[in-house]
Amino acid sequence: MKIEGKEYRAFWFENNTVKFIDQRKLPYNFEIYTAKTVDDIAFAIKDMIVRGAPAIGAAAAYGMVLGKGKTHETANKLSKTRPTAYDLFYAIDYMEGEINKGKNPIDAANNYVEDVIDRCKNRGKNGEKLIEDGMRILTHCNAGALATVDYGTALAPIRLAHRTGKKLFVYADETRPRCQGLLTSWELMQEGIKHSVIADNAAGYFMKNGEIDMVIVGADRIAKNGDFANKIGTYEKAVLAKENDIPFYVAAPVSTFDKNIEDGSRIKIEERERDELAKINGKTIMPEWIVVKNPAFDVTPSKYVTGYITEKEIVK
Amino acid sequence: MKIEGKEYRAFWFENNTVKFIDQRKLPYNFEIYTAKTVDDIAFAIKDMIVRGAPAIGAAAAYGMVLGKGKTHETANKLSKTRPTAYDLFYAIDYMEGEINKGKNPIDAANNYVEDVIDRCKNRGKNGEKLIEDGMRILTHCNAGALATVDYGTALAPIRLAHRTGKKLFVYADETRPRCQGLLTSWELMQEGIKHSVIADNAAGYFMKNGEIDMVIVGADRIAKNGDFANKIGTYEKAVLAKENDIPFYVAAPVSTFDKNIEDGSRIKIEERERDELAKINGKTIMPEWIVVKNPAFDVTPSKYVTGYITEKEIVK
Repeated sequence: MKIEGKEYRAFWFENNTVKFIDQRKLPYNFEIYTAKTVDDIAFAIKDMIVRGAPAIGAAAAYGMVLGKGKTHETANKLSKTRPTAYDLFYAIDYMEGEINKGKNPIDAANNYVEDVIDRCKNRGKNGEKLIEDGMRILTHCNAGALATVDYGTALAPIRLAHRTGKKLFVYADETRPRCQGLLTSWELMQEGIKHSVIADNAAGYFMKNGEIDMVIVGADRIAKNGDFANKIGTYEKAVLAKENDIPFYVAAPVSTFDKNIEDGSRIKIEERERDELAKINGKTIMPEWIVVKNPAFDVTPSKYVTGYITEKEIVK
Repeated sequence: MKIEGKEYRAFWFENNTVKFIDQRKLPYNFEIYTAKTVDDIAFAIKDMIVRGAPAIGAAAAYGMVLGKGKTHETANKLSKTRPTAYDLFYAIDYMEGEINKGKNPIDAANNYVEDVIDRCKNRGKNGEKLIEDGMRILTHCNAGALATVDYGTALAPIRLAHRTGKKLFVYADETRPRCQGLLTSWELMQEGIKHSVIADNAAGYFMKNGEIDMVIVGADRIAKNGDFANKIGTYEKAVLAKENDIPFYVAAPVSTFDKNIEDGSRIKIEERERDELAKINGKTIMPEWIVVKNPAFDVTPSKYVTGYITEKEIVK
């Protein structure tokens, strides 16, 4: 991804340290966090300096490099950072295997990270073909380079379409709570892609007025029948896209397709803490007595999805 | 409306002054602003100490009382406070007419205010019949007592259903930007009605999960064919209600029906300033470089509306 005109990744290995773009500070400040030890990497994952399943896995791979000589202990420590992150365990297992086979840890980690990025790029290339010059695209949440080391999932096709010279305009839902739309706006601004942030309430308005040609979102988990879980609000935008005959695409790694669940009814939705809604960037915006319900995700039935953009193909 | 266990109105006449619940401070603080002069009333309207078309009209009626002896000058001054508020001009004209007929100004103003409240109460009674014991109701924005002197529009049926002993649960959309859902939450909390504030993104989730039985919203303007303008996001919730077979009602004064416009396409939507989205309660939540689009209202086609709750009847 471009930041201040230069090519960046969400983090990178440098002089026996891992340098992270500190995502806790974004989009307000651009700061680099340097991890020198395995504990620093564990802290970066736990404290959300790095976010997004693919990025967390890749960060753990570098963590295994910093823990060289103590492979098993390092694997244990890193496994405990985000116990629900599938990519995290996958990356740690991969690294343990390679190191036990005698492979140089940094080579193994680089392989892992380059593979993650290649997949993002391939998803981007597949999705880019769907985007026509002049299109106006809505996205929800942040499925960007920050969450995937580079390119992003939903943002990869948009980024590549822009780089091939197509003119675009992106509507970025603010995405309450947590306002990840501001991260999307930051990535798009850095990349030089024209866009606006809108209230989540305004997405339907722009669809109905014919100002949105396509919707692209990411996915956290996709059931066998195509139902998928994603950030709360995704279902609303999918229904509105269908009602207004606007193509609705889900961009996601092949690994997001979970063959063990038949349909979306099997996906359990987590309710998160009140403060996620009551505070923004540490600032309290709701009085103490206000009671909230805060489901973090929703499930969108496959009937609303035009296609799934993966690194292999576009599944309709 | 109930506040701290006592009956209140959004404002009232007392000892030759008008006492306003200061809506600039809500829902964070409950403070009273005292208007002693016509200039104080003009300030209260301009600075949004009082909000909502019916309430503004009623406040101006009391303003005409404070301006006694200078009827025409007072009318001029008050007319300039909110040049787009229809009820404001209606109330001023009414008061000028009554005063010129020799009527005691405070009697005329009281007549006007009681009529506004009676209409709200009658809307509430009509709408209350639609609400069954145990229902879970979604509302968007604040169409409450604060905006109508007492009872409210969308909140009047809910308030009366609660007072008749029906068990209810209300989902109050946060309603970005401006977060008027917090005002709704404040009114419901004071009235003792069980409710939660939810992110606007979560309304669809609760509808799909069968946790919402009815939607009631207000309206700013209703076209001849039933299309109506209301706070941004209303259209989204209406489409989602239809998709999930949930009755969707609009509660509004008869005066909101504008016979001069055939359908919703004639309603011009105002885009408001960036800060409305970028700040909450004076706190900046978006970095300076973020660009927004901020349509303040949307138009919901009549095909999504189950019925219109007015003070006269329920129009299907």
